[in-house]
Amino acid sequence: MSPKALDYDSLNENVKKVQYAVRGELYLRASELQKEGKKIIFTNVGNPHALGQKPLTFPRQVVALCQAPFLLDDPNVGLIFPADAIARAKHYLSLTSGGLGAYSDSRGLPGIRKEVAEFIERRDGYPSDPELIFLTDGASKGVMQILNTIIRGEGDGILVPVPQYPLYSATISLFGGSLVPYYLEETANWGLDVNNLRQSVAEARKRGITVRAMVIINPGNPTGQCLSEANLKEIIRFCYLENLVLLGDEVYQQNIYQDERPFISARKVLLDMGPPISKGVQLVSFHTVSKGYWGECGQRGGYFEMTNIPPQTVDEIYKIASISLSPNVPGQIFLGLMVNPPKPGDISYLKFVTESKGILESLRRRAQIMTDGFNSCRNVVCNFTEGAMYSFPQIHLPPKAIEAAKKARKVPDVFYCLKLLEATGISTVPGSGFGQKEGVFHLRTTILPAEEDMPAIMDSFKKFNDEFMAQYEDNRGYSRM
Amino acid sequence: MSPKALDYDSLNENVKKVQYAVRGELYLRASELQKEGKKIIFTNVGNPHALGQKPLTFPRQVVALCQAPFLLDDPNVGLIFPADAIARAKHYLSLTSGGLGAYSDSRGLPGIRKEVAEFIERRDGYPSDPELIFLTDGASKGVMQILNTIIRGEGDGILVPVPQYPLYSATISLFGGSLVPYYLEETANWGLDVNNLRQSVAEARKRGITVRAMVIINPGNPTGQCLSEANLKEIIRFCYLENLVLLGDEVYQQNIYQDERPFISARKVLLDMGPPISKGVQLVSFHTVSKGYWGECGQRGGYFEMTNIPPQTVDEIYKIASISLSPNVPGQIFLGLMVNPPKPGDISYLKFVTESKGILESLRRRAQIMTDGFNSCRNVVCNFTEGAMYSFPQIHLPPKAIEAAKKARKVPDVFYCLKLLEATGISTVPGSGFGQKEGVFHLRTTILPAEEDMPAIMDSFKKFNDEFMAQYEDNRGYSRM
Ligand SMILES: Cc1ncc(COP(=O)(O)O)c(C=O)c1O
Ligand SMILES: Cc1ncc(COP(=O)(O)O)c(C=O)c1O
Repeated sequence: MSPKALDYDSLNENVKKVQYAVRGELYLRASELQKEGKKIIFTNVGNPHALGQKPLTFPRQVVALCQAPFLLDDPNVGLIFPADAIARAKHYLSLTSGGLGAYSDSRGLPGIRKEVAEFIERRDGYPSDPELIFLTDGASKGVMQILNTIIRGEGDGILVPVPQYPLYSATISLFGGSLVPYYLEETANWGLDVNNLRQSVAEARKRGITVRAMVIINPGNPTGQCLSEANLKEIIRFCYLENLVLLGDEVYQQNIYQDERPFISARKVLLDMGPPISKGVQLVSFHTVSKGYWGECGQRGGYFEMTNIPPQTVDEIYKIASISLSPNVPGQIFLGLMVNPPKPGDISYLKFVTESKGILESLRRRAQIMTDGFNSCRNVVCNFTEGAMYSFPQIHLPPKAIEAAKKARKVPDVFYCLKLLEATGISTVPGSGFGQKEGVFHLRTTILPAEEDMPAIMDSFKKFNDEFMAQYEDNRGYSRM
Repeated sequence: MSPKALDYDSLNENVKKVQYAVRGELYLRASELQKEGKKIIFTNVGNPHALGQKPLTFPRQVVALCQAPFLLDDPNVGLIFPADAIARAKHYLSLTSGGLGAYSDSRGLPGIRKEVAEFIERRDGYPSDPELIFLTDGASKGVMQILNTIIRGEGDGILVPVPQYPLYSATISLFGGSLVPYYLEETANWGLDVNNLRQSVAEARKRGITVRAMVIINPGNPTGQCLSEANLKEIIRFCYLENLVLLGDEVYQQNIYQDERPFISARKVLLDMGPPISKGVQLVSFHTVSKGYWGECGQRGGYFEMTNIPPQTVDEIYKIASISLSPNVPGQIFLGLMVNPPKPGDISYLKFVTESKGILESLRRRAQIMTDGFNSCRNVVCNFTEGAMYSFPQIHLPPKAIEAAKKARKVPDVFYCLKLLEATGISTVPGSGFGQKEGVFHLRTTILPAEEDMPAIMDSFKKFNDEFMAQYEDNRGYSRM
């Protein structure tokens, strides 16, 4: 009998081509080890609550009440919920038509899109139009929708930073487009050099590819850098000249761990530049409730905002969003709460600020502990995590280690990360999952383990690494240290 | 300057080709009228809570507590939550790693996939493997994932019932495949004739299309029929002989309004048939929390279960699910509650049964009121809604009405539905949105308006329809009635 449609050999080739490392070999091995009873420290995904971060109280109270609207009439409700949470739940329920159990408009609830627009206006100083904001089940779904709209086939190229977050490479493969890499400069703190961009575009053109869009991740994943205003200006000018849609992945905009380069949105820089550029560059910006001090990954709330996108295209994107009916409504409420948190004077304000500041300040300290820890290890160098949630140390693997990896039929960084996992339970992602230059090896870890566990984790890493290096370096090299 | 990537002219052609009627012209006009202050009865989407259906209390209590786990330690929690809801919340939280705020495995929480497998086993009498069950953000997302995996290009055909739910036509267009229609027989209560299937496949082959999969919607949307066991056997044998993947959309399995044809799953029938067929047909079955007596559409909870799908393919589907990280976790909990509702003896059992039975019995009465109402109207004939949530009357449009529609540059059924909307506020979907035979016209409405409003709605429909017919029929025709 001929092969069936869901036999491996007859699947959509684009599906097969997709590579996805964040939950790849390392993750699977870690899950196995966990089943066997080993204690695993999952630092492979930016998933704060899985590593013990507590949810913020106020938003959870509001969403709990929205889920149980019958409580709003319960005379005892005031015993366990503060009045401002009750009021806010009533507010959000009034924005739905039928509560959390009803499909919303496929773009999301109009009232929440309005709150998002107001947040953007406060942040950037320019008005934002709710009709150009679509709510999504996390930022991932938004990125996928937009790339699906742009990519027509192999001839369409998307500029993606390398190292990059694999959502982009995977989605581009899935929709049959071509990834055009541009390299971030590790020696320049993972900065973006516009000359690299030009070169990447020129090379892609030689291969017959039309570069149509450019992705920036700011703050960066896995690299942790924050783009400066000057750098953003260069990028936008480049998009203008090269006629590229700019996709601004700004999911880490609240995760900033230094004061020199505060977050500044691509949209603000674009609009600051004035015409013709401010009217000439098509921009889609992404945000989420999964990151920041929220970390509400499992709720799947996000949005994208479109700037300079023609109405007919917005209609097309709306039509495609309609196929899956509606983003999840509780996630929309979380998004509303994120863009409109408690204000000074609200009953819950102090608690909210204490909780959220506590998380951010601890993340800042953890970023430092981790960077310092890695830099104290033999053959490891690591840029400081300026923002986001990751540390991305470079590991200089000695030739013998690379040989051993070859023998074991593993990519060298996978080999290293697997050994690390088996020895310490620390589950990281090999740098090759994010793309890197030839012959250079990294790993990515989140900075999310609990602060009190951090020193022990870094000690255990150092012990493993230094032993690994001792084993694979020739003796001369080792004794010289 | 050359067109930009997000200008309409340069979008992905597959995106532009997608047609999606459920939220099409009628819905947009209805939204406009609503803004102008007109009272609109939205019967265009199967969205029960939007039409006043109350959520079931117990599941909402459980999910509210999962959202606010800090309440579990509150000494007052017992004042507003019953003990079994508290226990169940603790149970589900123990299945997560980090509560609702943590990404789950991309296939969903293992513990809930196990509960789904147990439900399927109880329902069908055959064991089910949790590893072959993936949780999704509503059934729509699952259908899209599977079609994306199957469709390689225009040469791949998917058999879809006509009239059909436009999720299928839209998704097939989006992924660049070919829809191969098979017609349901209105005169045979929307039954499925296998001869029609054979003919459809033969015609598709003549056009060079490889038919790879077949969709059944049971109970049907928009047509409301329930497939008999004999009919399901014929379909499965057909899939076996023609080497087709069977996609069983069974989201309405709890919505049954007659006793002759209870719901029977495609999987049970398949496994009952024994080898070689039971081992030879690849089947994917879909379910959701959006329908039944739950109607929790906004929560976006669903699953698909795979039968006879090779492990390598399951891995590929897992990889693609990983790109968007995780289905929303609260929706997963709703799904757990749906497959594992309160049991006799539980504190909340009686209330749960009273609420859920009340909803189903009322839907059954409403199905009858609606069918009878349509059949009492001039030039309208309507099959009884055996299951699902829709009524799909045929409207015999007089030639003059068709002419008037042409003049107004509208498809005739769109013309009729727009007039109905303007006159009565009833927002339906024209039959052409679901596909229908040449020259035959329908509309689809849900049976979801509140039971007490039903008589008035049907009166208002009848008044509009009979006046419409009087206006467009020639006098002889009218006086003869
Ligand atoms: C750079 C980047 N973009 C997007 C996402 C997607 O986040 P979500 O889909 O949870 O909003 C992530 C998640 O880790 C990310 O790191
Ligand atoms: C036949 C059918 N399948 C699937 C769905 C999708 O439902 P959901 O994505 O809400 O689970 C619907 C919704 O109306 C439907 O009618």
